[in-house]
Amino acid sequence: MLSLVDIRTRIEAGTLTPEGAVRLSRDAIAAREPAVGALAYIAEAPAIPAEGPLAGIAVGVKDIIDTADLATQMGSPIYAGWRPKADAAVVSRLRALGACVLAKTTTSPFASIDPTETRNPHDPGHTPGGSSAGSAAAVAAGMLPLALGTQTGGSVIRPASFCGCAAIKPSFRLLPTVGVKTFSWALDTLGLFGAGVRDLSYALAHLAGRPEIDGAAASANPRIGLVLQDFAGAAEPEAQRALEAARSAAERAGARVSTVALPDPLPEAWALHRVIQDYEGRQALAWEIAAHRAELPATVGGHLDAAAAITAAEYDAARRCAHRSRRVLKDLFGDFDALLTYSAAGPAPAGLGGTGDPRYNRLWTLMGVPCVNVPVPGDGLPVGVQVVARFGDDGRALAVARLIEGALARG
Amino acid sequence: MLSLVDIRTRIEAGTLTPEGAVRLSRDAIAAREPAVGALAYIAEAPAIPAEGPLAGIAVGVKDIIDTADLATQMGSPIYAGWRPKADAAVVSRLRALGACVLAKTTTSPFASIDPTETRNPHDPGHTPGGSSAGSAAAVAAGMLPLALGTQTGGSVIRPASFCGCAAIKPSFRLLPTVGVKTFSWALDTLGLFGAGVRDLSYALAHLAGRPEIDGAAASANPRIGLVLQDFAGAAEPEAQRALEAARSAAERAGARVSTVALPDPLPEAWALHRVIQDYEGRQALAWEIAAHRAELPATVGGHLDAAAAITAAEYDAARRCAHRSRRVLKDLFGDFDALLTYSAAGPAPAGLGGTGDPRYNRLWTLMGVPCVNVPVPGDGLPVGVQVVARFGDDGRALAVARLIEGALARG
Repeated sequence: MLSLVDIRTRIEAGTLTPEGAVRLSRDAIAAREPAVGALAYIAEAPAIPAEGPLAGIAVGVKDIIDTADLATQMGSPIYAGWRPKADAAVVSRLRALGACVLAKTTTSPFASIDPTETRNPHDPGHTPGGSSAGSAAAVAAGMLPLALGTQTGGSVIRPASFCGCAAIKPSFRLLPTVGVKTFSWALDTLGLFGAGVRDLSYALAHLAGRPEIDGAAASANPRIGLVLQDFAGAAEPEAQRALEAARSAAERAGARVSTVALPDPLPEAWALHRVIQDYEGRQALAWEIAAHRAELPATVGGHLDAAAAITAAEYDAARRCAHRSRRVLKDLFGDFDALLTYSAAGPAPAGLGGTGDPRYNRLWTLMGVPCVNVPVPGDGLPVGVQVVARFGDDGRALAVARLIEGALARG
Repeated sequence: MLSLVDIRTRIEAGTLTPEGAVRLSRDAIAAREPAVGALAYIAEAPAIPAEGPLAGIAVGVKDIIDTADLATQMGSPIYAGWRPKADAAVVSRLRALGACVLAKTTTSPFASIDPTETRNPHDPGHTPGGSSAGSAAAVAAGMLPLALGTQTGGSVIRPASFCGCAAIKPSFRLLPTVGVKTFSWALDTLGLFGAGVRDLSYALAHLAGRPEIDGAAASANPRIGLVLQDFAGAAEPEAQRALEAARSAAERAGARVSTVALPDPLPEAWALHRVIQDYEGRQALAWEIAAHRAELPATVGGHLDAAAAITAAEYDAARRCAHRSRRVLKDLFGDFDALLTYSAAGPAPAGLGGTGDPRYNRLWTLMGVPCVNVPVPGDGLPVGVQVVARFGDDGRALAVARLIEGALARG
């Protein structure tokens, strides 16, 4: 993979130019993209600023995020060739930081559940996950050092786990979603994919304008709560082994790990995530439903049809449960620096007919808390683990994730 | 003014057709628009559905709200002639309910503070207020029975007060802002303008899919807290007289009115509203600043420039204060069915160089609570009062507003 921090270090040292750095991405795209299919659109002659903390960083932008100079097609023929007027806020921020917006990355239609044509870079017979399929696959295939995704259920952490790269779903609205095609305004969160945790810290600190995110260090002996999320069902053996490996690594690095069961009403909130997602999705995509229902793919179309039955009272009750749950979770973080749990139920499923199950991600999206995927080295297809911290504590989530990443690498 | 409920009653009775109802608006536009200038764009041959609870209702849509079939120009030359791909969610909803989207209404550029060319329908030498200038003026001039606006500070309630029509800024996100050009995602709220409170209740209940909003009745002897918002400075004599008239009317209608001072930290939250607004505005309009700074008008451009100095820590502190304040305000509503306060500091200021002061509106937008403007009959330019209820209690806000409206009309 292309490490953002490595590229920036070489540019700072004068051994690589921003143009040369972007050429690394172009070369990798030429080599890998035909087999992976992660990119919806490649810019022909994008600006490559000479200065800025992200100068030389070629970025992939999920294709539900508006770009004024590149088509933004939402993974759907309804938006074929569509060119928005303005860049999304986060894209403007990328450019202001010197990044090169090199490509749009594939997305499930409207960032929902139907698959893309993208293949898992570790095995073309397996899904890369979704909905941020192209962003995860492009970073994992070494084509890009940074990519943007979004998560409504598990659309950042799950594909990162399947593809074997690092990723963060930050605290809700840490990065602005203005100019992002919303599915659920209470859930949709912009996220980042990178080669390693340090790359994420660097990028997020700059994008959010919060330098302390990158400077954060884990406490000497962080307290980590191991969460199995039993309410979501059992994980597959590969995921169980990855979680156990991460737990052991954390303990070797000095962490105090103890198993914790999530108190009420968190399991209930987990179950109600979909009520909020689909009630809002049906409103957010009202124009697409009214004007283009036949062009919506089967799964998301079916979900949106079914969502017509969700009542305002059910939605309100789900929101209230989520609100109570956030307070309970905040209290829980009085006892723990971070929680450690599954990123996905197992490795990427075989076939390209689905994008896998977000069941270990939904709760955290609803809680709005920062989540980091840490790949766990091993044989076979990638599997990651998920580090979760308190709302607004993105720096700590990344610091604990880095501690685990380092301990895993030392073996 | 054209009453939505009156039009619907006549259509239901068979004495008016939807086409005939829309013609009432067209005729009024022909007579009044040249002097008022409330409309940014008039549809030539809009669909007029025969069925639906809003069939026959000609609606004006503030020009920061996306319409697929009409230009959406944000009150700015940057967006001259811009045609979005999709309808905003609320516009799709209007059409699904049978409404006729007849016109886009003028807005301050990017729904901020710089004036439009629109004139107050009661005196062309006075501002109609802003930023939802055209929506307020079009309804007050009798051109449209319903119009959509948005409020970040006081952009719905203030122009309604200045123009002399009813308006509601509902609970935060009761109506989805998908497809609305955001200034501040934590504040921006869609609102409605109508001839009277009953018209708002009918429209909001249907738009939100919450029939109980229209059916709500005030309790027999509602407890009303009179709030002077001293922290915002003194109101002008006309506004003081209007508030006193509304208080007396409420008491005649059986309400128990007592003066209440807002407890800490609500005055502090009021002062911090602008921190949130401008910190987010600078991100939301990042593309416009980067690509078109010279085309931004003086006031909003200056605010956005100054917002570069707001730190993330200041923003976070403001958000935390707002969060604490919402809990305190919720508790206060244990003692009151509604609060009664100023809608604006006085009648519409003379001249078209400004849009008036939102100082009595900012706190309530930040609190996310429903606010209704009730015009107070009197000599001279219009002045309204503002009824505020608990978050989510939009039906109660409207019911108390209607009680006051009725008592004022009986004199």
